Amino acid sequence: MSLKVVVIGGVALGPKAACRLKRLVPEASVTILDKDELISYGGCGIPFYISGDVSDASELQSTSFHMLRDKKFFKEAKDITVLTRTFATSIDRKNKLVEARNLDSNEEFTLQYDKLVLATGSVPNKLPIPGSDLDGIFTVSNMQDAIQIKERIGKGEVEKVVIVGAGFIGLEMAVALSDLWGIETTVVEIEDQLLPGIVGRHVARMVQHHMEENGVNFHFSERVQEFTGNGRVERVVTDDRDLEADLVITAVGIRPNSDLATKAGLAVTARGGIIVNERLETSDPDIFAGGDCIETRHLITGRLCYMPLGSLANRQGRVIGTNLAGGNDLFEGVVGSFAVKLFDLSVVKAGLTLKQAKNEGFNAVNAFVAQLDRAHFYPEKDMMFLEVIVDKDRGQILGIEGVCDNGDALMCRINAVVPLLKNRAHVSELCNLELSYTPPLAAAMDIINAAANTAENLIAGRNRVIDIEDFEKIWDNREKENMVVIDCRAWGNAKPFVERYGDYWINIPQDELRRRINEVPRDKTIILVCNTGVRSYEAQLILDQYRIKDTYNLQGGVAGLKKSGLNLV
Amino acid sequence: MSLKVVVIGGVALGPKAACRLKRLVPEASVTILDKDELISYGGCGIPFYISGDVSDASELQSTSFHMLRDKKFFKEAKDITVLTRTFATSIDRKNKLVEARNLDSNEEFTLQYDKLVLATGSVPNKLPIPGSDLDGIFTVSNMQDAIQIKERIGKGEVEKVVIVGAGFIGLEMAVALSDLWGIETTVVEIEDQLLPGIVGRHVARMVQHHMEENGVNFHFSERVQEFTGNGRVERVVTDDRDLEADLVITAVGIRPNSDLATKAGLAVTARGGIIVNERLETSDPDIFAGGDCIETRHLITGRLCYMPLGSLANRQGRVIGTNLAGGNDLFEGVVGSFAVKLFDLSVVKAGLTLKQAKNEGFNAVNAFVAQLDRAHFYPEKDMMFLEVIVDKDRGQILGIEGVCDNGDALMCRINAVVPLLKNRAHVSELCNLELSYTPPLAAAMDIINAAANTAENLIAGRNRVIDIEDFEKIWDNREKENMVVIDCRAWGNAKPFVERYGDYWINIPQDELRRRINEVPRDKTIILVCNTGVRSYEAQLILDQYRIKDTYNLQGGVAGLKKSGLNLV
Repeated sequence: MSLKVVVIGGVALGPKAACRLKRLVPEASVTILDKDELISYGGCGIPFYISGDVSDASELQSTSFHMLRDKKFFKEAKDITVLTRTFATSIDRKNKLVEARNLDSNEEFTLQYDKLVLATGSVPNKLPIPGSDLDGIFTVSNMQDAIQIKERIGKGEVEKVVIVGAGFIGLEMAVALSDLWGIETTVVEIEDQLLPGIVGRHVARMVQHHMEENGVNFHFSERVQEFTGNGRVERVVTDDRDLEADLVITAVGIRPNSDLATKAGLAVTARGGIIVNERLETSDPDIFAGGDCIETRHLITGRLCYMPLGSLANRQGRVIGTNLAGGNDLFEGVVGSFAVKLFDLSVVKAGLTLKQAKNEGFNAVNAFVAQLDRAHFYPEKDMMFLEVIVDKDRGQILGIEGVCDNGDALMCRINAVVPLLKNRAHVSELCNLELSYTPPLAAAMDIINAAANTAENLIAGRNRVIDIEDFEKIWDNREKENMVVIDCRAWGNAKPFVERYGDYWINIPQDELRRRINEVPRDKTIILVCNTGVRSYEAQLILDQYRIKDTYNLQGGVAGLKKSGLNLV
Repeated sequence: MSLKVVVIGGVALGPKAACRLKRLVPEASVTILDKDELISYGGCGIPFYISGDVSDASELQSTSFHMLRDKKFFKEAKDITVLTRTFATSIDRKNKLVEARNLDSNEEFTLQYDKLVLATGSVPNKLPIPGSDLDGIFTVSNMQDAIQIKERIGKGEVEKVVIVGAGFIGLEMAVALSDLWGIETTVVEIEDQLLPGIVGRHVARMVQHHMEENGVNFHFSERVQEFTGNGRVERVVTDDRDLEADLVITAVGIRPNSDLATKAGLAVTARGGIIVNERLETSDPDIFAGGDCIETRHLITGRLCYMPLGSLANRQGRVIGTNLAGGNDLFEGVVGSFAVKLFDLSVVKAGLTLKQAKNEGFNAVNAFVAQLDRAHFYPEKDMMFLEVIVDKDRGQILGIEGVCDNGDALMCRINAVVPLLKNRAHVSELCNLELSYTPPLAAAMDIINAAANTAENLIAGRNRVIDIEDFEKIWDNREKENMVVIDCRAWGNAKPFVERYGDYWINIPQDELRRRINEVPRDKTIILVCNTGVRSYEAQLILDQYRIKDTYNLQGGVAGLKKSGLNLV
């Protein structure tokens, strides 16, 4: 008898596991069930379908060689049976049966399995508030939603959109709607920053500024109380305001779709994520699970976490396929790699944010650096901003995140840190990480090395820094704070600041500091500023020599302020 | 008494070590000697200065904030004394003295040191052949050469250039001369491929094809015998031909400049590289050395190797600076990361080539894959070609190299493997490497994961492959070889090949293979072909089921053939 495998869920992980198994054990009999008609589509492409970057929905369901991944494709190319519009109602673990129902005919039937794969994905959270059933309120959790949204836009019915939730789906949708369609888009977020739990405050602020410059409105720390309208949504009411909207997208997170697993008595977490071991077996060794319906181990915190990303689903699918075939492949966990492109700005991260690291009990510090992505003499280049989070006591690298217009170049730096995060490496490993170098693609001392060097100097207490947000606070109160900025750049750069801020902003170029040391006020807190934070660090070391110690180096410099929208002149 | 440090050499490592030391020990007294007038310039930028991408030589000597790194800069910004046009003639280790001579005044003097840094760099190899002293024959080893070459081009004196050596400097120069200046450029190389010892045959071939398409001529496996001309070079005579040239660039490698070290009795290798430990101390613990004058440990082979790259010099400089200050920073060695951009094509690698791995005794195999750099449904994307070298017995990752028009995206993949190479990681680590994902920047199953998966399938014997070069050999002899190509793509793609090659090239799309199995010839060697090698692998597994085993999957597929210049139709 050949191996009988049933896979419940046909979007990302299910087909991947099924195909891998069939490559290893061609004689296995594999059936995939999915409640939808459309299967095996790239759900991550939905915002690009809505924006128009992807012109036809079928492209999201095609292979790279333009074959539609439909039932026929799975049968002929893969020898896998796919039953669409088929809902798995329950699992009889004792008899190894899946009970299912065809959603069109209502016909009920059972499928026998030797091994079962749960790829049931996630369900979007809904806001439990009045009006949430009004027409025109969407999630973006499947192709049907996406097609409907695009239809309404195409008909010219949509002029104002409110997006609830500034997670990455919400932000991608904001870009899709405002960039190509020119729709007035407002994002309401209950937390006090965008991408909460994903990136730290500095990166969030830079992204926000970039999106605002591109016309997206944000309201943070506001809770949506109600949707109102006459049949169709017309207004979004928050605790602070009342926003017009012809269409609303709620993107307030998703949760594991684990009802079937729970009903079958499989172990799930408090959050509802199916619990699996490194082989991705559930509490029943004949049942595997992966993708958006499981929780997985965070390799830095050691805790379970919920990380519903298409890339993980694909990799987990292969692991399950191998193990279905009798292999022993392991999925050890995640370090939380993440990327998103918003208008022209890319955001990439891995590991923990500063806040998360502190919450986990690490003695975390952040080195924030700005550097060009290429050799500074090379004509085309972009400024990159990177924040490295390290544990001050152990030197362990805990996280890295950044923004850059050159998304590939940014991803290039973050990805190189991923294996180090996983190995809980010391920051010194990053100082000498041997990134490849050529002037058109990198600097001889790469920004990654520079960021690690800065972190090392921070840990050693040599580089005493102030962050952009803290600088803003002290600067806004400069009349009360006994402070002065020393701008370590050349006069040409400093001039507009000095002219505007007089006694609060003085200019002593770093290379003139030694001979002009008498001009440095000794009775004030000094904020040292240059374009990126490199010369101001040198200046700090010089002042240390002269025993002027109440000095703070602005991390990221004026370039960082500007990128954050803090244009002081 | 403050620490007295003398640094011999002021290009890359010397200034870096000096500046780092001064940041850690501001009261140290530091003197840098250099025999040239120009110091602290980005030598890697020379080809871009010659091409015109960098318009002024001073840009290579400036900081990212446009300050010229000259003597005055080092004095005022760094409190470091620089003596240019100063040649260190010998080292008196017993009395800790450097004897030096000013090359303009011929004045001789001695400098006392507590610690000495040798940053003497490299010297270009010269061809020991007749005519090599003719005017118009250059190396590209310093700014003086570069300025002279550019002057001659600017005057319109140069129409034909012969470059001897297809290493990266030779190739970068070929691009610089032919791209912007339109000079007819011919490269002569003694080895049978370009970038010998740096990349393997597949990548080399793709680069060659790209450069040939951009008008560069290559002659491989040819030795230059003589330069001829009347005072000024006019012809380059190889063992096979006679080439006209108004200017010749010899780029036949460089060697450590270690005369001073040798004379001082420091340990050097047979190749002349100064021997250092991980602290970068020479055999005299008061003398450090780094950059192009040392050999370093290759972390995969365990052997000493010569790796004269600006990026390493910078990182080593910082290590020396830290150790001069009493710290204990280590430079463990290299995995051989490398990058170069040639016209529109970037080449990036790390670790060993297939040939090097075999020569080192590894049971090495290569997985060669082609995949888009982004989600296949995303509108802008480039095909990337990657080769992963693994040890078949241990599964250890030994090397990775590739080409792509999107150099940042390529570097992104290679850099992520660098930490794994260093840790001698198993290829399975690469299968699940958690690269960040977003459709505009990556595929859900990234090419790195796909390449590792392919390597795993190769090791397991599931995927039996044929390389592009071997395919070419068998294909060129197809009338004698009992072979047939089965093209697994759709008819539209296969048609021109079938029409041209008849019985040698038949078309059975992979998804039709099961039902058309009777059309598969059972008495021939079958080469399975698709666009990239993915569908042909699936086809191979199907044929295995039908016990048709004499089949080989063309790695990289038709996309790979094309990129190598093998346009069969």
